Amino acid sequence: MTNVYDVAYSLEKAIRESDDFKHLKLLYDQVNNDESSKRLFDRFRETQFELQQKQMMGQDISDEDIQKAQQQFTLIQQHEAISRLMQAEERMSMIINDLNKVIMKPLEELYGIPNNLNQ
Amino acid sequence: MTNVYDVAYSLEKAIRESDDFKHLKLLYDQVNNDESSKRLFDRFRETQFELQQKQMMGQDISDEDIQKAQQQFTLIQQHEAISRLMQAEERMSMIINDLNKVIMKPLEELYGIPNNLNQ
Repeated sequence: MTNVYDVAYSLEKAIRESDDFKHLKLLYDQVNNDESSKRLFDRFRETQFELQQKQMMGQDISDEDIQKAQQQFTLIQQHEAISRLMQAEERMSMIINDLNKVIMKPLEELYGIPNNLNQ
Repeated sequence: MTNVYDVAYSLEKAIRESDDFKHLKLLYDQVNNDESSKRLFDRFRETQFELQQKQMMGQDISDEDIQKAQQQFTLIQQHEAISRLMQAEERMSMIINDLNKVIMKPLEELYGIPNNLNQ
């Protein structure tokens, strides 16, 4: 019997050594080592986080909030390094999501939960 | 470079073949193949689910709701097979949680999120 933790550590290593992760790290460092890119991206993230918090707390999201988020999004999209970073983040998040689905299969089968309800 | 998906499939296999999963499956089948145990456990799960839904929707949980849940919990605790199943479920959920923490390490390190904030 293989120890599940040993295999999980192998998976951690494989993620760390994957092209997708290395690419993400490169772009992340590129954006964060540049003062103005970092500030722009941090502000965008903050706004996103605030909106999510408001949604979760059932608070109203004002037109002003939406406008602010849209303006920041436009700026971000025009920023080459940041938009590449965001694409890499999206891809990595998709991969992690896929990996989780694979790992959850035994339990989903046991509990009879169809895979497409657990995304 | 190792393909992350290949390693994830190995992890799925290791989970499926682990003593903890086999033990869980045995207890799950034992409870679900017995009509009266199954009914008792299903009702308990339903009540739990209803309470969680109410909590998430911000609805009031009545004294009656709490009493019903407590009564069912007492019944469940006295039921040998069900209480063993619940222990096995708790253990499996702890393992899956641990595995997820291992897999998320590369991203947590990159984003500087301390591990103990992500449990």
